[in-house]
Amino acid sequence: MLLRISSRTVYQPFALIFLLIWAVASFAAESKHPHLIVTNADIEQMRLALADKGRFHSAFEKEKQRIDRLIKESINVPVPKDGGGGYTHEQHKQNYQAMYTAGMFYQLTQQQKYAEYVRNMLLDYAELYPTLDVHPKRKVKSQNPGKLFWQSLNEAMWLVYTIQAYDLVHDALSAEERQKIEQQLLRPVAIFLSEGQPSTFDKIHNHGTWATAGVGMAGYVLDEPEWVKKALYGLDKSGKAGFIKQLDELFSPQGYYNEGPYYQRFALLPFVTFARAVDRNDPDLKIFQYRDSVLLKAIDTTIQLSYNGLFYPINDAIKSKGIETIELVHGVAAAYAITKDPIYLDIAQQQNRIVLTADGMQVANALDEGSAKPYPFKSVAFGDGRDGDQGALVVMRAEQNGEQALLFKPASQGLGHGHFDKLTWQFYDKGNEIVSDYGAARFLNVEAKFGGRYLPENESFAKQTIAHNTVVVDETSHFDGDVDKGNQHWPRLITFNNNQFGTLAAGSIDSAYPDTRLDRTLALVNLSELKRTIVIDIFTVNGNAPHQFDLPLYYSGQIIDTNFPYQANTTSMHAVGKKNGYQHLWLTASGTPDSGLAKVTWLNENGRFYTVSNLVDGRETFLFAQTGANDPDFNLRNEKTIIRRVADSPRHTFFAVLEPHGEYNPSEEYTLNADSDVSSIQYSKEGSLNLVEVEIAEHRYLIALDTAKTPTSDGFYYNGQSFAMQKGLTVHLLNRQQE
Amino acid sequence: MLLRISSRTVYQPFALIFLLIWAVASFAAESKHPHLIVTNADIEQMRLALADKGRFHSAFEKEKQRIDRLIKESINVPVPKDGGGGYTHEQHKQNYQAMYTAGMFYQLTQQQKYAEYVRNMLLDYAELYPTLDVHPKRKVKSQNPGKLFWQSLNEAMWLVYTIQAYDLVHDALSAEERQKIEQQLLRPVAIFLSEGQPSTFDKIHNHGTWATAGVGMAGYVLDEPEWVKKALYGLDKSGKAGFIKQLDELFSPQGYYNEGPYYQRFALLPFVTFARAVDRNDPDLKIFQYRDSVLLKAIDTTIQLSYNGLFYPINDAIKSKGIETIELVHGVAAAYAITKDPIYLDIAQQQNRIVLTADGMQVANALDEGSAKPYPFKSVAFGDGRDGDQGALVVMRAEQNGEQALLFKPASQGLGHGHFDKLTWQFYDKGNEIVSDYGAARFLNVEAKFGGRYLPENESFAKQTIAHNTVVVDETSHFDGDVDKGNQHWPRLITFNNNQFGTLAAGSIDSAYPDTRLDRTLALVNLSELKRTIVIDIFTVNGNAPHQFDLPLYYSGQIIDTNFPYQANTTSMHAVGKKNGYQHLWLTASGTPDSGLAKVTWLNENGRFYTVSNLVDGRETFLFAQTGANDPDFNLRNEKTIIRRVADSPRHTFFAVLEPHGEYNPSEEYTLNADSDVSSIQYSKEGSLNLVEVEIAEHRYLIALDTAKTPTSDGFYYNGQSFAMQKGLTVHLLNRQQE
Repeated sequence: MLLRISSRTVYQPFALIFLLIWAVASFAAESKHPHLIVTNADIEQMRLALADKGRFHSAFEKEKQRIDRLIKESINVPVPKDGGGGYTHEQHKQNYQAMYTAGMFYQLTQQQKYAEYVRNMLLDYAELYPTLDVHPKRKVKSQNPGKLFWQSLNEAMWLVYTIQAYDLVHDALSAEERQKIEQQLLRPVAIFLSEGQPSTFDKIHNHGTWATAGVGMAGYVLDEPEWVKKALYGLDKSGKAGFIKQLDELFSPQGYYNEGPYYQRFALLPFVTFARAVDRNDPDLKIFQYRDSVLLKAIDTTIQLSYNGLFYPINDAIKSKGIETIELVHGVAAAYAITKDPIYLDIAQQQNRIVLTADGMQVANALDEGSAKPYPFKSVAFGDGRDGDQGALVVMRAEQNGEQALLFKPASQGLGHGHFDKLTWQFYDKGNEIVSDYGAARFLNVEAKFGGRYLPENESFAKQTIAHNTVVVDETSHFDGDVDKGNQHWPRLITFNNNQFGTLAAGSIDSAYPDTRLDRTLALVNLSELKRTIVIDIFTVNGNAPHQFDLPLYYSGQIIDTNFPYQANTTSMHAVGKKNGYQHLWLTASGTPDSGLAKVTWLNENGRFYTVSNLVDGRETFLFAQTGANDPDFNLRNEKTIIRRVADSPRHTFFAVLEPHGEYNPSEEYTLNADSDVSSIQYSKEGSLNLVEVEIAEHRYLIALDTAKTPTSDGFYYNGQSFAMQKGLTVHLLNRQQE
Repeated sequence: MLLRISSRTVYQPFALIFLLIWAVASFAAESKHPHLIVTNADIEQMRLALADKGRFHSAFEKEKQRIDRLIKESINVPVPKDGGGGYTHEQHKQNYQAMYTAGMFYQLTQQQKYAEYVRNMLLDYAELYPTLDVHPKRKVKSQNPGKLFWQSLNEAMWLVYTIQAYDLVHDALSAEERQKIEQQLLRPVAIFLSEGQPSTFDKIHNHGTWATAGVGMAGYVLDEPEWVKKALYGLDKSGKAGFIKQLDELFSPQGYYNEGPYYQRFALLPFVTFARAVDRNDPDLKIFQYRDSVLLKAIDTTIQLSYNGLFYPINDAIKSKGIETIELVHGVAAAYAITKDPIYLDIAQQQNRIVLTADGMQVANALDEGSAKPYPFKSVAFGDGRDGDQGALVVMRAEQNGEQALLFKPASQGLGHGHFDKLTWQFYDKGNEIVSDYGAARFLNVEAKFGGRYLPENESFAKQTIAHNTVVVDETSHFDGDVDKGNQHWPRLITFNNNQFGTLAAGSIDSAYPDTRLDRTLALVNLSELKRTIVIDIFTVNGNAPHQFDLPLYYSGQIIDTNFPYQANTTSMHAVGKKNGYQHLWLTASGTPDSGLAKVTWLNENGRFYTVSNLVDGRETFLFAQTGANDPDFNLRNEKTIIRRVADSPRHTFFAVLEPHGEYNPSEEYTLNADSDVSSIQYSKEGSLNLVEVEIAEHRYLIALDTAKTPTSDGFYYNGQSFAMQKGLTVHLLNRQQE
């Protein structure tokens, strides 16, 4: 410890002299560094922007406080010991971020202290790295290990940041220092992450993206064009793997990333960062124009896949992640810098965070000028799979009040983090999750909770079909819970239409279960006379032998009322089933409503009521259940669901209308409209035309939903009367009752 | 309907002419009305303030939109039919508020339309009222009924507002109209609420306050000094009942209201409103100076009894109620108007709402001038009972970071809404409830939930001892759940001290159980070297025969870790017990830790960790439980508790340290300090001196807590060393471990 400090002291006078010389020289002759994601020209502009005292300056000042505090502390490069969330893990994460920031501050301020900090830390790493074997907490089976980190994924992230830091301080280092840092640290890390782990480097997966980004960027900085080629085209440079192949395979033509928005956001950073570096160093590749600008579409899609700032939590998703995440801050800055489209400024404003890069500077300056335009959130069916034909992820947004959104998932499995939830849905109202999805069962980086990794309950519950709002046949998950089988099959998006009456989509899958076809039609319908929006859900199961069908609806809140009797389990409770996630559900109550409308009303935490009006035939049993059974370590959150069950039938249609209503305001002591306004529902179907007659709040509506792939009909008859029909979805007000 | 409208039309021309004459006359000769809570002089000042375009003007404009929209609708005075939350109930509530507001707007704007609105509505009421019998939805046993409302409480509230409205428009009415309104409506209502229900009118209870306020104010306006006397001194005018007696009995000398802050806030409005009227009309009574200004103290105490804007939810409390409630907006305005103390402006600013009264105007003007000073939240023991000697409600606030608060309740029963929770506590950190209280089991005004009234589970669970963080002996609630018995006994506050080391209080009760004494010492302790605050909890039970002792800790969040094994009930769950609230708890797991430190760590929703380190002797079993058993109508929220149980012992000490720590931030992907930092605890006691040696985050502290009523010792010996002692509480840092 003492030795190290004194050896550093010896360096300093020499370094200082060298740096002074360089500081003068660097303005005389143009330096090659930095050239990775910022150039000397960028830096000059950024220095000018700092003089303006606008948002870029504020971000700089804020970050300066943080980095100045950090560089005052003694440098800490501990011997790797802990897994994710543990002390050494967090310290190494903090280190690479600090080096990157200090490097940028060196460029922006020209103050030696920042370069020295990066230099000293790199030298410490250069001492440590050659002594390391693979990480003691490595996962034996599932992932390649790192040396500094338990998984090579983190090691690749370390390289992505560190190589930028090195580029930024390169010219402040002596030849001897460079030699040591490159030979003992950067080159070995780059080789370890490429040749050292071909299975990850050549993987068409976000882990592969981090590895190729780190190694490719190291190639640019260390002048190793071969590394860049391998990063772009795979270890054998054939193009069968590598960054370009990842761009081809991992995004659909609309820029949807197969694993869902949570991982799309995560993958975005290495994609955008490396692409920015490619753009600077190999501009002829026109990387941002590649595949009809798929990377820009990917950034845009990530934004579209958010509601009230948070990503739709499909698949293995941590629910608090949203547009404010640093990955999307970088993504939005890049999208604005490249397109100059002012809608991205709206998102940047909501993110309320400016990155200290050339892109960040452009965003800051444009925001200072008040150039933001509202970002248009839309109803979109995002095609899934590389050609966009492996199902779709459908987002519906209410035009009416703009406050509702519906997510429908006739999408593909989405690899290992995918859930067995074909045709599931989620619903959002007034900023809140109403019909909910559990997301991932994980306490990220909390060591006591299974080392901060995905919990066993992620496999046994969160991924299983019964944990989602879609049909389970015979208490068995889709594809029998087999990921490989799931990855080979996908639903079809049958139709998607959006007009002034709302949004309609239909999806279908016949491979989730043998000899059974699942069909779901969902519509978010505007009732303009009532200024209200309702959801229509029609789920048809067609098998060729009797089965049990379960359709859960996970809701957030407290049951307020039902219009049918049920028996609660008051003195003892049992699990709903034994396997495939059922073992994690406590059966709290059950009831079998007579045929007709079976209604359940609940109240959510923010004081709004929701009623689901189910059209039943007297054969459906409603199971009220709560997660938490078979949970010996208190790993599960306690969430609630209502499961519609048909015990023994070859086919069945689950029909329901969901209706947000009223307000509960105990603070102001008023309660409005606590009762459902739906008084009757008639449903009929002819071919692709579904007709739904709903009486709601003394208005009688006829809602026509045509699920033909290309709807052609411009009219239909109902009760002897003719009605006009628009593409896909039409709402007719039949009559308004006299008041 | 048509008839009513046309009869109104006939009135109008006369009224108009009359009003025009009055409008001129009223400035020549001073009118007697209004004189209830605003005078003509007030009104003139308020009109001047409106010209200033400050906060008062903004509040006026905002309210004007609302009242202008309301008075455009046709007047609706329905025949009473529904209970609380039902349609006619809500309509009559809306009506009296609208009359009051319109009356004030008539005075402020001198526009006839406002007076006409009030007049027409009063005339409709005058037609309706004589036709009414008592309300069809009246509660047969528990409360006097109203005629317009199901309970006379609401009728009294109606009168409090309506008599003010009448005073405000009095001079705009014809003699004939006044005659009709007074004879057919106001006088009958006042008599109904006084002579008609002596049991409520003469009750020393907030329902009595509403009745006396309404009747007394009617006395002032209708020139019936006898009514005023009855309101002030009881129906027999002896002073054994009435408003003055209520001021004597219902508040402690420090202004604490026996039922707790939720009801204190509710009671405040009639107290403050009627007192304002008394002040204007009988200034010699010096009502606000009465009993050493007990009413002003009551307003101040209501503020002190809040955390992060919400009231501490003891007894039957709806948890979303806080300082923003209209009752406290009026209270704070009155407190400022009377005292001119700028600390009330701080609260008014947080309330962000200005009432259109003379008091409201003063607040608005002072806020416009930027006169607010920070309101000082303090650590206080609020004496309970009329003489302040029936126990106390103790609030502790951390001086350290100011973000923690602890509520300790060695307070009296608090009448019918009181809970059997002697010596319970609650804890708050960073704006959130951490160690929680269920509050009331009620969905206010939600008809489907037991008519919006208190749910049966309020009696069977929420009021019971096991629903609180205090000791239950032999699964029986305090006072055997008998309110009358509870009202006759109370705990003693043994000591309360507050210094730079923190706050300490001790309470005791020997009447909650036969032959058993409960003693609790709680301290909120500042560890200044660590910039942290911990809680020390020492609960001693002394009986003279073996009993079972249960001490629950209700927490909000998810169990993260324990340092002892437990067995979870994974496939079936049973209720913890059969009665006294136990029947509502599911037993989720249980474990018996070895003697030493038994730790439980949980994570709350806002991403902070909490560890309770319990000092156990190997005989305590920890029961993990969740509310929701025996809940056939889904009336209970699902909350969680850890119950420490000693099965068969005449005496026991439950010792625990609660420690907030760390941060879980899945959005930014970091987790800090997820593990408890407490590594050892030693506890010893000699007489009134409790010594606690805690090793936490590599610091060894000796914490001395002296629970003597008047601590005199200025030092003590520990392990042969002498230590200085300050009054009540002292913290010594023994050593800091080498790093």
